[in-house]
Amino acid sequence: MTRRVPDLSVYLVTDRLLSRGRELVDVVLAAVRGGATLVQLRDKDAPARETLALGRALLERLRPLGVPLIVNDRVDLALALGADGVHVGQGDLPPEVARRLLGPDALVGLSITGAEDLPTLDPAVVDYAGVGPIFPTGSKPDATPALGLEELGRLRRLLPVPVVAIGGISAANAAAVIAAGADGVSVVSAICSADDCEVAASALARAVQEGRARRGSR
Amino acid sequence: MTRRVPDLSVYLVTDRLLSRGRELVDVVLAAVRGGATLVQLRDKDAPARETLALGRALLERLRPLGVPLIVNDRVDLALALGADGVHVGQGDLPPEVARRLLGPDALVGLSITGAEDLPTLDPAVVDYAGVGPIFPTGSKPDATPALGLEELGRLRRLLPVPVVAIGGISAANAAAVIAAGADGVSVVSAICSADDCEVAASALARAVQEGRARRGSR
Repeated sequence: MTRRVPDLSVYLVTDRLLSRGRELVDVVLAAVRGGATLVQLRDKDAPARETLALGRALLERLRPLGVPLIVNDRVDLALALGADGVHVGQGDLPPEVARRLLGPDALVGLSITGAEDLPTLDPAVVDYAGVGPIFPTGSKPDATPALGLEELGRLRRLLPVPVVAIGGISAANAAAVIAAGADGVSVVSAICSADDCEVAASALARAVQEGRARRGSR
Repeated sequence: MTRRVPDLSVYLVTDRLLSRGRELVDVVLAAVRGGATLVQLRDKDAPARETLALGRALLERLRPLGVPLIVNDRVDLALALGADGVHVGQGDLPPEVARRLLGPDALVGLSITGAEDLPTLDPAVVDYAGVGPIFPTGSKPDATPALGLEELGRLRRLLPVPVVAIGGISAANAAAVIAAGADGVSVVSAICSADDCEVAASALARAVQEGRARRGSR
């Protein structure tokens, strides 16, 4: 595999409803100023045409900053946008289909909700795993049970690709999540719902660094 | 434009919830035996992976019968399936995007909910219009107000592509819909919820013929 996996350290998943009425572009740009390293466009309940417009606005601002934008679930939106890739869940289009439609250079991520999902991840197809939920979360009502840090560490050792942890992660627990083995933390409400999205992203970035230092010192 | 628009006479839109627990493949095949001429796969609430599996099962059965299968909204599903095209609504990916992603041979349909949508239809891009709702309908809770037969006739004269009428159409009113100018009738519950889907499709096909005869005799 020749694809370079981008920096997953602070991986922002957008959520219009959790953004407290603010423009999502503003939320995302503030997060990037604070240290978000990758943005996933997720807007499940919006019409595709609105998400397309939002994605175009985001790409225009993120490209010059070198921050990748990937699209949740909808490979057609990723194609239409010329986005950097997609993230698919276990019920979405299979990663093999996404890879075939997007080509070899796209980033393809796959959600892993527990050990039973491990066989679904082919490292020749999938670039990184989104493992979670690590903690109970309010931003995904249909989420599977929380895995906890120990299971995250176990899954990380079994997975042949980088892992971004998701689900209930905040600046308060991000260092522990990274110390447990995650390569990055993925957040929705910890940034989208924060009073100051830049400050929130910055706190997460610091926590990720702290977690890496902890891991390095063991 | 060199694309040949297929027979739109009895255009079935699938709906798992309205199919009374029956297998959708069985519903569709019965409808085709009765005279359905085109099938649109619509399964808004199902995970994409399930719809992909359903689409594969449908294509396998419909291809040998020469009945086109098109996909509602999701261009990526159409691409993954190798389906015959897509139908997009005004809030879905724009038809221009669908055309670009699917190529020149795919069928691209666009929903027209009133005169205000007419400028959105470029006949170099869109193969047919789905005009409706003609009558009040229960199978699309977010539908716009019913247009009625007179407005259908007016829109038909203004539209540069064939028109399939949708919304509250049954065997009891299909002839009047065709007589008002539609090239075909699109139904959901009139077939999916019928006691006998084959009989229901057959009654619709007869009504379409009757409507054409009425129009021809004017």
